[in-house]
Amino acid sequence: MARDRHLAEALFRPAAVALIGASGDPDKNTGRPQRFLRQHGFAGAVYPINPGRHEVQGVPAYPSVADAPRPVDHALVMVPAAKVPGAIEDCVRAGVTVATLYSDGFADLGTAEGQARQRALVEQARTGGVRLVGPNSMGVMNFNAGLTLSVNAILEMPEIRAGASSVVSQSGSILGSLLSRGAARGFGFSKMVSIGNECDVSVGEVMDLLVDDPETSAILLFLESLRGASAMAAAARRARAAGKPVVAYKLGRSALGQRLAATHSGAMTGESAVADAFFRAHGIVRVGMFETLLEIPPLLRSGARVRARRVSVMTTTGGGAATVVDRLGELGVETVPAPDALAARLADEGIAVSGKAIVDLTMAGARRAVFTAALEALLDDPASEAVVVVVGSSGQFHPHLTVEPIAAAGRGAKPLAVYIVPDARESLALLAEAGIAAFRTPESCADAIAVMLDWRAPLPQSHPGAGFDAARVERALAAGGAAFDEARAAAVFAALGVPVAPHQVLSRGDEPVTVPYPVAVKLLSQRVTHKTEVGGVVLGVADEAGVRAAVARIRAAAAAGGAAVEGFLVQAMARGLGEAVVGFRHDPEAGALVSVGAGGRLTEIYRDVALRLAPVDRATARAMVAEVKGFAVLAGYRGLPRGDLDALADAVVAVSRLALLPGAPVAEAEINPLLVGGVGEGVTAVDAVLVPARAESAA
Amino acid sequence: MARDRHLAEALFRPAAVALIGASGDPDKNTGRPQRFLRQHGFAGAVYPINPGRHEVQGVPAYPSVADAPRPVDHALVMVPAAKVPGAIEDCVRAGVTVATLYSDGFADLGTAEGQARQRALVEQARTGGVRLVGPNSMGVMNFNAGLTLSVNAILEMPEIRAGASSVVSQSGSILGSLLSRGAARGFGFSKMVSIGNECDVSVGEVMDLLVDDPETSAILLFLESLRGASAMAAAARRARAAGKPVVAYKLGRSALGQRLAATHSGAMTGESAVADAFFRAHGIVRVGMFETLLEIPPLLRSGARVRARRVSVMTTTGGGAATVVDRLGELGVETVPAPDALAARLADEGIAVSGKAIVDLTMAGARRAVFTAALEALLDDPASEAVVVVVGSSGQFHPHLTVEPIAAAGRGAKPLAVYIVPDARESLALLAEAGIAAFRTPESCADAIAVMLDWRAPLPQSHPGAGFDAARVERALAAGGAAFDEARAAAVFAALGVPVAPHQVLSRGDEPVTVPYPVAVKLLSQRVTHKTEVGGVVLGVADEAGVRAAVARIRAAAAAGGAAVEGFLVQAMARGLGEAVVGFRHDPEAGALVSVGAGGRLTEIYRDVALRLAPVDRATARAMVAEVKGFAVLAGYRGLPRGDLDALADAVVAVSRLALLPGAPVAEAEINPLLVGGVGEGVTAVDAVLVPARAESAA
Repeated sequence: MARDRHLAEALFRPAAVALIGASGDPDKNTGRPQRFLRQHGFAGAVYPINPGRHEVQGVPAYPSVADAPRPVDHALVMVPAAKVPGAIEDCVRAGVTVATLYSDGFADLGTAEGQARQRALVEQARTGGVRLVGPNSMGVMNFNAGLTLSVNAILEMPEIRAGASSVVSQSGSILGSLLSRGAARGFGFSKMVSIGNECDVSVGEVMDLLVDDPETSAILLFLESLRGASAMAAAARRARAAGKPVVAYKLGRSALGQRLAATHSGAMTGESAVADAFFRAHGIVRVGMFETLLEIPPLLRSGARVRARRVSVMTTTGGGAATVVDRLGELGVETVPAPDALAARLADEGIAVSGKAIVDLTMAGARRAVFTAALEALLDDPASEAVVVVVGSSGQFHPHLTVEPIAAAGRGAKPLAVYIVPDARESLALLAEAGIAAFRTPESCADAIAVMLDWRAPLPQSHPGAGFDAARVERALAAGGAAFDEARAAAVFAALGVPVAPHQVLSRGDEPVTVPYPVAVKLLSQRVTHKTEVGGVVLGVADEAGVRAAVARIRAAAAAGGAAVEGFLVQAMARGLGEAVVGFRHDPEAGALVSVGAGGRLTEIYRDVALRLAPVDRATARAMVAEVKGFAVLAGYRGLPRGDLDALADAVVAVSRLALLPGAPVAEAEINPLLVGGVGEGVTAVDAVLVPARAESAA
Repeated sequence: MARDRHLAEALFRPAAVALIGASGDPDKNTGRPQRFLRQHGFAGAVYPINPGRHEVQGVPAYPSVADAPRPVDHALVMVPAAKVPGAIEDCVRAGVTVATLYSDGFADLGTAEGQARQRALVEQARTGGVRLVGPNSMGVMNFNAGLTLSVNAILEMPEIRAGASSVVSQSGSILGSLLSRGAARGFGFSKMVSIGNECDVSVGEVMDLLVDDPETSAILLFLESLRGASAMAAAARRARAAGKPVVAYKLGRSALGQRLAATHSGAMTGESAVADAFFRAHGIVRVGMFETLLEIPPLLRSGARVRARRVSVMTTTGGGAATVVDRLGELGVETVPAPDALAARLADEGIAVSGKAIVDLTMAGARRAVFTAALEALLDDPASEAVVVVVGSSGQFHPHLTVEPIAAAGRGAKPLAVYIVPDARESLALLAEAGIAAFRTPESCADAIAVMLDWRAPLPQSHPGAGFDAARVERALAAGGAAFDEARAAAVFAALGVPVAPHQVLSRGDEPVTVPYPVAVKLLSQRVTHKTEVGGVVLGVADEAGVRAAVARIRAAAAAGGAAVEGFLVQAMARGLGEAVVGFRHDPEAGALVSVGAGGRLTEIYRDVALRLAPVDRATARAMVAEVKGFAVLAGYRGLPRGDLDALADAVVAVSRLALLPGAPVAEAEINPLLVGGVGEGVTAVDAVLVPARAESAA
């Protein structure tokens, strides 16, 4: 922690900074930081480092950081890639705490050479005790201290106000956009860090510093990938404990966006649903639209908790409110009519709102007293979880009628969002000043409301392991050795507590059959994952003669296909009302994941799968099952018999406990299908695959 | 047409207007229009009509329109509902061409009384020869003539510039929002009409006037429902012929939004997919986001045509461009790398773009010569259908480097869209001035690009009826009488050209069976639509004894359930690789619709259905089949055998021809399931329902 405070001070409140490679031309990129620091009133010492000059932009320059008259806390390195090791050496000699590398030409090149160069740099800095931000960073800013250690052109703005949100970004240029758009709306920022290639100081580490920063009340992230996810997760949990919301805009919602992030940063990037599971598990709010990132913070003031998806919407302009409400409907949010007392009060004014989805005061309600009374009644209404106010032309021409009452009423406990239909900069700024969440488009307003209602506290770190016999699972895993055939995988699932169809292994094929008929006979072979396709499965075998015949057929098919025969699995035929697929895997970015989907090809095609970080508790597993649309046919759809979805949820919990095993011995596991019986009849695993971690890393 | 021109003149360029119910207080709603007309320079005569006063706001007032010194073309009626008939009577006497009713309290009340009052008003006006806009209209504006016949507060703006887009809106207040946001962006408007309850003059009729208006180059619609859809459709087709794009933002994407529109306007409103089918058929562009409505027009200059979903994206700011590209990916749009010559040219500048999804010039490319060369090369590249330029901080601080070259290069044939990442009002206005489509958010930019690429010319009005034997279908329909059992429905589908499983009707049940075994035996009963649920279906019957047994079982089940037995259908058992559902219906708003989905419950749950206005040609039917995700399993998914999707498309074409029958005799029809055989094996209808129009209207 002491060390962290040291880093935080050097990053954000350095007493002296060095500008390595500073240009004498204040308009060149490398000349800008010095000019910006002066312009925005940085009070610390600024030392241009340039071996060829005695002064830079009128300030004494030094040939090396070690020559500076006072110790330097934070150096901004702006020299070409080839000269960066020399600059870092200089920082090491001078005892610099942190160097921010604007220089690029490292992992950002996407080449092995660039990556090797970056690794060498990290090694050098680590040995020398210098922390690195970047390379390829657009810099570090602290508007509470006039620290504008960046080449970003946005710093040309004559004045930049400080605010309470801090930003960490994997894209440098996006910081300029946030600053510019924030300035236009009256939002300031506290700290901004462009994390660049993230070779040393990570997003998670900066988040952690910001949790301890009294000037930061919300942490905003612009992410391309989940590099260093565990640090990010830990910091998000600390932020939650400190009452600071963490909000992420993450690229990679589409496959195209995922490819983009991969080429741009050289980092791996997974599917969007994995990122969603990660954010949800750690209490991070993921917004869908870029502008929402800027606009949402005040809406999150009252914290994450389970909220019903119900809001009150009031307006003076029906059409404008409808644009928000239609979008809310698309996002699964319902609206609540006015409480009776308010409806009666409004009826006295000739305004009919009773039972309507929108509390539309009409133009007749654009009066301060009526408007305030309605707003207060809705803020007090326990039937809704938030209030959305849609302001019409008064937002532009008569803010005293509607916007001022909102500003006066709004900083209570209940979340309040405002969308102003016309263009109304002054009103938006007035609301920003008052700390009220205000939105410039109906879509970002609905986006913010929906993600706020979905926002949950991080899942407890104390794992739902009660009654979990880890030793038994580990024994079953040990018995499987380096590779798992179906019988061994079934043993692991049984140890986890998943009901498995009665089965028996025949090594030769002629042993007596003890499993009750009818049975399925299957090829056992570690190498063959698609048994059916090689003719390795015979279903509905009625008697022992049938088993012998099936064994012969499978043996012949395996020989024809060149598959090794390691034995035969005889399994009791099981029946269910429906099928599920339950999966588990270790994602390289997000950690252990558990998934559940309906069985069959259509589910695959529709990508109808619920995904969470593992392990999950029963409530979470039930929520996952409820999320899968295809399970509707097992949940009473059109009078069909109900399936045992509780038992299915229990199986999800059981499989998710693979994440509790020390050393993460299982890379991947899947039950497909898990048959779901009627209510009270439970579930039965009839096919299972398990990939141990070692096997995977050997592949 | 002469009559129309007369209406257009009166609506938009009246020589004299009357303000019925004008208030002497210029700040009251009813006092505003007079003040606005003066403020915005309306050159015609303005007559306040107020029986209690000699002057209103310094202008002579008259007790009735008939007393005005010159003939009045257009009256704005602002009196309470009870006094509206008197005002209309006055208009009739004075020979007023059109009255716009700001007054509300008619169908907008959502009561039978309100509707009756409105019907009486329409009757009165029609008899008297006065056209009506409204009631509940926010008025009519023509900024080319200073006509601001509206109470909308937005008209407080000291100056409103005229532009080339005109708007028709079912929400009045939204016009203020468009004006306000447009003004802030440098977009003006030509005409604006708040259509209100649409009791007489409809959205379609105003669109039709705008097609002939030389000052209008694009028609924008804000819609709650598709009232008067046929007029809208005809006008959209004329707009297309005139080269004027029609763009719609329509509420009702969500069920919540649909309910809203219903309560708000008293109009019926259907599912969003029906509106999509309607817009698509008539060449109307539907935007997804509100701001896109304002921003998209210049992007549509080059007209609707079949375009590949491929665009070039160039930028100086990778992170900003990624926010657009990620969204484009979600909307199914791909990006095209730089052509080789451009990549080589940029490599000379040290900018590596070869093969990348985004042509990222980086900060090094924020130079006028480089930027212009890249832009021109992409505008000339035949590999992409449009160019998206994402401008970074230069958009705010150095427009001459990037924004000016865009403005200079951009009015060519290839669509060009610009997203400016920072807040940059001046640059946005500069681009608006130059007629370049510029976007304020990455989401609206992607929305516009995607709908532009999807935009098609209206389906030809000459129906794809070649080879269609309407008389045969009509005979089959006539044979069905007032209600259709399954056998009679099958005869209609067979007449349409859909292969139907061989079948035979047994009236008593003991007749000789001529259909080849195995067969299915089904109850025939007009009243029973869910035969299976009442025990009315026996499958897989192997011989005549089985048929007699099945008949007895069905008879008993029907007796137990109280269902009338009208006979038995014996049908050859058919097999397929998969199932489809093909449907037809007359939607009260949009017209005849044809749909196709994969069979089974999951398709219903996933709402995986393609919908179009009927009839459709073969190419459209194939596109519909390709749209249904569930048919992937019949299209070579994972090596599965391919189904005869061409035959399926032909069946969709055949069913859609029900729309060609004069008098729309079929209200609804459905084949469920239509079995799809392997390639070359065709399709077979095994169950069918048909509801004649008369039966429906009798229900």
